[in-house]
Amino acid sequence: MTSDHRRIDAPKLGEPYLLTPGPLTTSYEVKEAMLRDWGSWDDDFRAMTREMRTRLLALLGPGAEDFDCVPMQGSGSFSVEAMLGSFIPKDGKVLVLANGAYGQRSAQTMAYLGRDHIVLDKGDYLPPRGAEVAQILADDPAITHVVAIHCETSSGILNPIDEISEATYAAGRKLLVDSMSAFGAIDLRPSDIRFEAMVSSANKCIEGVPGFGFIIARKSELEAARGNSHSLSLDIHAQWAAMEKTGQWRFTPPTHVVAGFLEALRAHEAEGGVAGRGARYTRNRDVVVEGMRGLGFETLLDDRWLSPIIVTFFCPADPNFEFSRFYDLMKAKGFIIYPGKLTVVDSFRIGCIGQMDEHVMRQVVTAAKATLNDMGVASAAPPAAALKERAKLAA
Amino acid sequence: MTSDHRRIDAPKLGEPYLLTPGPLTTSYEVKEAMLRDWGSWDDDFRAMTREMRTRLLALLGPGAEDFDCVPMQGSGSFSVEAMLGSFIPKDGKVLVLANGAYGQRSAQTMAYLGRDHIVLDKGDYLPPRGAEVAQILADDPAITHVVAIHCETSSGILNPIDEISEATYAAGRKLLVDSMSAFGAIDLRPSDIRFEAMVSSANKCIEGVPGFGFIIARKSELEAARGNSHSLSLDIHAQWAAMEKTGQWRFTPPTHVVAGFLEALRAHEAEGGVAGRGARYTRNRDVVVEGMRGLGFETLLDDRWLSPIIVTFFCPADPNFEFSRFYDLMKAKGFIIYPGKLTVVDSFRIGCIGQMDEHVMRQVVTAAKATLNDMGVASAAPPAAALKERAKLAA
Ligand SMILES: Cc1ncc(COP(=O)(O)O)c(C=O)c1O
Ligand SMILES: Cc1ncc(COP(=O)(O)O)c(C=O)c1O
Repeated sequence: MTSDHRRIDAPKLGEPYLLTPGPLTTSYEVKEAMLRDWGSWDDDFRAMTREMRTRLLALLGPGAEDFDCVPMQGSGSFSVEAMLGSFIPKDGKVLVLANGAYGQRSAQTMAYLGRDHIVLDKGDYLPPRGAEVAQILADDPAITHVVAIHCETSSGILNPIDEISEATYAAGRKLLVDSMSAFGAIDLRPSDIRFEAMVSSANKCIEGVPGFGFIIARKSELEAARGNSHSLSLDIHAQWAAMEKTGQWRFTPPTHVVAGFLEALRAHEAEGGVAGRGARYTRNRDVVVEGMRGLGFETLLDDRWLSPIIVTFFCPADPNFEFSRFYDLMKAKGFIIYPGKLTVVDSFRIGCIGQMDEHVMRQVVTAAKATLNDMGVASAAPPAAALKERAKLAA
Repeated sequence: MTSDHRRIDAPKLGEPYLLTPGPLTTSYEVKEAMLRDWGSWDDDFRAMTREMRTRLLALLGPGAEDFDCVPMQGSGSFSVEAMLGSFIPKDGKVLVLANGAYGQRSAQTMAYLGRDHIVLDKGDYLPPRGAEVAQILADDPAITHVVAIHCETSSGILNPIDEISEATYAAGRKLLVDSMSAFGAIDLRPSDIRFEAMVSSANKCIEGVPGFGFIIARKSELEAARGNSHSLSLDIHAQWAAMEKTGQWRFTPPTHVVAGFLEALRAHEAEGGVAGRGARYTRNRDVVVEGMRGLGFETLLDDRWLSPIIVTFFCPADPNFEFSRFYDLMKAKGFIIYPGKLTVVDSFRIGCIGQMDEHVMRQVVTAAKATLNDMGVASAAPPAAALKERAKLAA
């Protein structure tokens, strides 16, 4: 596989690549944009906030005019909690579709809020399907909202958000999407997939540094959200209303992180927006999956469910394989990988997002090969239990 | 007034000084520390988190061993909300001591939480005194906690936290302190002033960039906080327990902001810690107050209540004075000042915190003088209503 794209520069200060789902490797330009101070009250910074919101909204494509973008301080989970607390009325009832850590976190958030909810728990990675959702909604007319995870980063599965949206709206309910790790690289266009609100954060596919998240929601939902929130800080209606009125964030914004993010948004546009970004990540994934399979590794998921965001590989059965050593040796070679989150079998993950291209992914495979060698691992084949686990996907 | 200190460098990229209470002017070294990426799961970053917590705790002085430090994503208000939600049990009752916007914000947070509270509202700036607190606590045995603002940044008043603490503990209640704008420059030592928990943030007197806050709390309170929080994201017990166990933040930390903050903490130590930092800010304040008074401006507060953090000046009565023009002309001269927050008379504020010294403060006065000239303001004297307002302080 070759590419006509400019090669992406290696980290300028020589730090390892972050093959992780955020914080991720960002461009030097993004970080350089943080080298000055801004007053959050000043017009210059208000203009930056305005540009950021406008650029993010534009990524929705046709129909964006019905939505607005509200940035929110904190990590991505803060924005998810803000979305749940602000858009689900106190007497609402939620169906949370869980197939991994982030679905579970949304369910846990609902428990903190003390609002009514049920969970469709599909285990570590099995996808929630449209037909199941339709059935649950038919059986329980009290459900007002469905919460879905776009890419469940804990396994890397790309959930069938189109089926889920169709089932939700066919039953007259509303959809809220955690698109944290997908937005900016995988389309989520209201003209194709109906939803009321979604969240993502600065340090995912737009490739900024961490420090805030953002909610993109239908204006009618933003209006209606007044008085719902359990939290002053996480009240999206209040944040939106203040921002519309004054152009400022209600409370001190992470000014430098915002400046870096604006630079990242400009680079995202220059790369061809969602399509261009998604294409690079897809090449990254294809190269790393092909290469790792060539070494004998196996992916948790069938190709059909593999996202271009992050890929889960089973740990080799070979007794010489030990994840923490693999991690350290890969780090010494310049690559920080990510531990797995499966409960049943051992695994690790390799992220495909951030400032890296297929050339880097080839180096990752080369490093993995050398590392297996260093460790005296003869075969990267997973244990039988892993393959048995995976067979569930076909069932 | 002269100083034997090294002059502080001007902003390297030529941006204006931020004479504001955060975001503030930070050193170039702080921002340079953000020029690389870190994996939040990696040991290198865990070590940074550990060093940060240890350094912050050490600022408490003797007795610090009974406390622990928990960083929290989001702006300072997020940390205040986290403190209130985590340490006040659902059946607790709070007395909020308010004399400005931040006291009011704590009261508003309590209303969001739906927990019982009363507010002693002293208006725009009058200090809540120990005797008043003692009286209210004697009259209402249901009150379990008192919430106080250390420096109420909206007027710049340094509240009498010692009196408030004494009254609180004499009545067997507990004190929580919003020391956002004071911590790091004004002592808050448990050996002198008893309290259960306090909050501050990265972009105040430690001179980091904005992106997170931190809570310093008695370990016994951290233990007891389990199950209190109304919010998953803002649950200090959960954040603390996870950090103790894994060395990681529960959710993605603002890695770059943390790296900058560590650099800021080292510079804080090199300057002589709380005493050295406080001495520089005090000189800044003295120079700007003396200089502005020399131009005919008057401060809202008597010297006794003036903090070394930020000073409120009355707007001149002269009809040629218009704040927005004053702001723009000062900005053009390299100084971003801050609007006032008084409800009764017009005012503006000048911050004394951030990377600036008395030389800069003299330039601020010179710029203010030239700006009055530009605007054709003959006298900087405030209107009679301002002086009448101020007379309340003496009463
Ligand atoms: C799908 C999804 N949801 C939520 C989160 C939580 O984001 P954060 O770690 O920034 O709180 C993540 C983080 O990776 C994620 O991938
Ligand atoms: C005393 C006090 N409390 C709370 C806050 C709120 O902090 P933030 O704006 O970071 O939310 C501030 C900010 O200046 C403050 O000075």
